[in-house]
Amino acid sequence: MAQELRIIPVGGMGEVRPGDDLARLIVAAARAQGTPLQQGDVLVVTQKVVSKAEGRLVALADVVPSPQALELAGRLDKEPRLVELVLRESRRIVRAERGVLITETRHGFVCANAGVDASNVAGEGYVALLPEDPDASAEALRQGIGRLAGVEVAVVISDTFGRPWREGHVNVAVGVAGMSPFLDYVGQTDPYGYVLRVTTIAVADELAAAAELVMGKLERVPVAIVRGYRYQPGRGRATDLVRPAERDLFR
Amino acid sequence: MAQELRIIPVGGMGEVRPGDDLARLIVAAARAQGTPLQQGDVLVVTQKVVSKAEGRLVALADVVPSPQALELAGRLDKEPRLVELVLRESRRIVRAERGVLITETRHGFVCANAGVDASNVAGEGYVALLPEDPDASAEALRQGIGRLAGVEVAVVISDTFGRPWREGHVNVAVGVAGMSPFLDYVGQTDPYGYVLRVTTIAVADELAAAAELVMGKLERVPVAIVRGYRYQPGRGRATDLVRPAERDLFR
Repeated sequence: MAQELRIIPVGGMGEVRPGDDLARLIVAAARAQGTPLQQGDVLVVTQKVVSKAEGRLVALADVVPSPQALELAGRLDKEPRLVELVLRESRRIVRAERGVLITETRHGFVCANAGVDASNVAGEGYVALLPEDPDASAEALRQGIGRLAGVEVAVVISDTFGRPWREGHVNVAVGVAGMSPFLDYVGQTDPYGYVLRVTTIAVADELAAAAELVMGKLERVPVAIVRGYRYQPGRGRATDLVRPAERDLFR
Repeated sequence: MAQELRIIPVGGMGEVRPGDDLARLIVAAARAQGTPLQQGDVLVVTQKVVSKAEGRLVALADVVPSPQALELAGRLDKEPRLVELVLRESRRIVRAERGVLITETRHGFVCANAGVDASNVAGEGYVALLPEDPDASAEALRQGIGRLAGVEVAVVISDTFGRPWREGHVNVAVGVAGMSPFLDYVGQTDPYGYVLRVTTIAVADELAAAAELVMGKLERVPVAIVRGYRYQPGRGRATDLVRPAERDLFR
């Protein structure tokens, strides 16, 4: 039978600033609270601290909205400078109606406002963009943690996305390193002899969702350790979680 | 800071049959494996065992497909009897193309095949339907567990759904009892003084996703205990997680 999981919040990291060595901060914070990282842990890290460490903060006052951003902002009743940033971060608008701007980011993620967000960002009038390449960010963290803590971990970078059909937001994986984002049952046989035909579980998204339960939005817990999960080691990328547009019935 | 969570798989329940007292089976299985239920636990239970206990199994051989089911099955290259059941369980077809049949169930859930599924169902040629009213099923379990174990718990009934835009399936909540399915941050202030405007977390879906990580599909673990999560007690219903069709940009 599967073993028990522990989901351990990691706090006490203080404010993360551009240029900070995030791997070092995480290793130290986990150690300081008495839960040092262990071999085989999955580390879930919010996009926000990764973006901060990578300097992906923008002062809205410095942004000059294009005519398209002004038009769209007027129509959606949104801040034109924010809309300008969203357009710069996007390769395609998926929906722009009823005050909602859903785009396909340059990475391929479909989400509101291209992941550009003003919450939990230090400084009035600043917003955080998604990392340029969250899979590369995850891989850098994984390698940094390997060097500093001497343990192999998998890393999931999470963000909070809405979704069609269902109310509320959930955390999903926007960056993955050291593990497959999927657990594939296709062709396997259930305990009754039935061969599973379609089930591939997006475990990286489930790990991100699980971690959110200890992170919250108000408590300065930007990292969680998932301990006891036997992931499938490998390169893995969160961009593999993106359904290609031509196979997507809802884009 | 948030406290650590434990996600404890509960196995050893044996085959669940129509008419079984599922609350009794769960309480006994948790006790037998040395992890008796505790006050404040969230119990995540797969839809499949709830459907079995409630007798929601159908022999495909007994189903007579309607002309519409035959037409749709031919077009999608699906089993006509399965399509007939899907149509009976649905109030609306959302997409029927490229071999995929996505409908709105009578409960309002948007998912493939109306949740009708042949995996992990004892007996060749049988499929399981979703419970008639999964919120009522969850509430009955919650009350049964309260009576038998003397502890108050919250109950989430989970199923494995695909989603637009992203590859892979994740577990979501199709039934909820004893807790709010949401954690609402709207109007709250983050540590930097920014007032959150849009964030409502669908915690019931995140609990379902977290539990899936210990359940798997092949290991006869139909129940998981999430221990340490401070849910918001209350009535709560998974149908509140359904976005009303008129507010959904993707239906």
